Amino acid sequence: MFNEQEKEALYRIIHTRRDVRTFLPDPIPEEAVMRLLEAAHHGPSVGFMQPWNFILITQGEVKARLAWAADKERRALAIHYEGKRQDQFLQLKVEGIQQAPLTICVTCDPTRGGSHVLGRNSIPETDLMSTACAIQNMWLAATAEGLAMGWVSFYKKNDVRDILGIPPHIEPAALLSVGYTEHYPSMPILESAKWEKRRALDGLIFKEAWGTRPDITP
Amino acid sequence: MFNEQEKEALYRIIHTRRDVRTFLPDPIPEEAVMRLLEAAHHGPSVGFMQPWNFILITQGEVKARLAWAADKERRALAIHYEGKRQDQFLQLKVEGIQQAPLTICVTCDPTRGGSHVLGRNSIPETDLMSTACAIQNMWLAATAEGLAMGWVSFYKKNDVRDILGIPPHIEPAALLSVGYTEHYPSMPILESAKWEKRRALDGLIFKEAWGTRPDITP
Repeated sequence: MFNEQEKEALYRIIHTRRDVRTFLPDPIPEEAVMRLLEAAHHGPSVGFMQPWNFILITQGEVKARLAWAADKERRALAIHYEGKRQDQFLQLKVEGIQQAPLTICVTCDPTRGGSHVLGRNSIPETDLMSTACAIQNMWLAATAEGLAMGWVSFYKKNDVRDILGIPPHIEPAALLSVGYTEHYPSMPILESAKWEKRRALDGLIFKEAWGTRPDITP
Repeated sequence: MFNEQEKEALYRIIHTRRDVRTFLPDPIPEEAVMRLLEAAHHGPSVGFMQPWNFILITQGEVKARLAWAADKERRALAIHYEGKRQDQFLQLKVEGIQQAPLTICVTCDPTRGGSHVLGRNSIPETDLMSTACAIQNMWLAATAEGLAMGWVSFYKKNDVRDILGIPPHIEPAALLSVGYTEHYPSMPILESAKWEKRRALDGLIFKEAWGTRPDITP
């Protein structure tokens, strides 16, 4: 169905994708934005509920308010770190909302599809997990399009609801900054900042039961 | 960075990916399984916490117990549907755990990375969303490899914890059946079963604020 080159393309895109926080002001072609949203909309969803909406934000004033909400949260979180770790935290650039020409707020509507969404009744958080799958599709699409994307998760949901007029029952699942960048990172920025390391995959694999390490691979 | 063919490959993989519930017994080459897990492990994660583990299940006895847990939940859920909708529900094949040669239980450890994971402190469910992004990477990799995957979300988490010996604080986020299939669906099975329809993307896009439809696209 897919040849070696197509497989390689996917793996290369998956390995190239990074969380980016530094953007150029250049606008994004309308067709590219629509391809990103199409990719997201073709993500899987529990009971095929498609719980997502996409709020596209390009106005400077709205972006400034979102950046304010993110910065407020960043300053509040900094208080939980001490000494050297706090300095290190405050030096991290945690978002690029005002730099990026486009922010996409991806929301999740837990009521979509009615009271008995197939599969969601057993595990309610599958609606948010579906939304995350849509975001991952969008992120890979952005990477393939030569765009950079950053997932901002520093905010109080009610601040974002207030700024964007989102109803109380809708989850503002993510703020995604999208744009071009001159500084596409070759490794995760939290890895190059020596904040966290990539774990060895082998240590994360078990066989038949939790804690049982495979002697031979599957 | 990526040429037109590579972009097209990604979009074709995204559009081909389906939730599959019918599998052939043929085993999966070990290298292919490792490529799926590598793809998952290169998913994004909040604060680079990499909260996932992968339990590979191939033993018939363990699969039978997981299938039992899924079937018990399916029968319990059926009670919530009435009349024609119940008949329709009971006709759906909701899982293929015993048919598929491999089941992967993907877990999420909310304690990984310590008490102050960057970004997760603001939105705790970003750990599960990170795990979902890893699953989506794996799903696209499976599609590219010519494999079929099904995400089973019909179970009580504590049943799955009991069967696989998963500690109480670890989330069994998904059971994924993986294998080859002779019946790769061209559209979502819940769409062909007339359970749900794909929504029009245009209706899901807002501009600058919730509820504001774009007159011109971004």
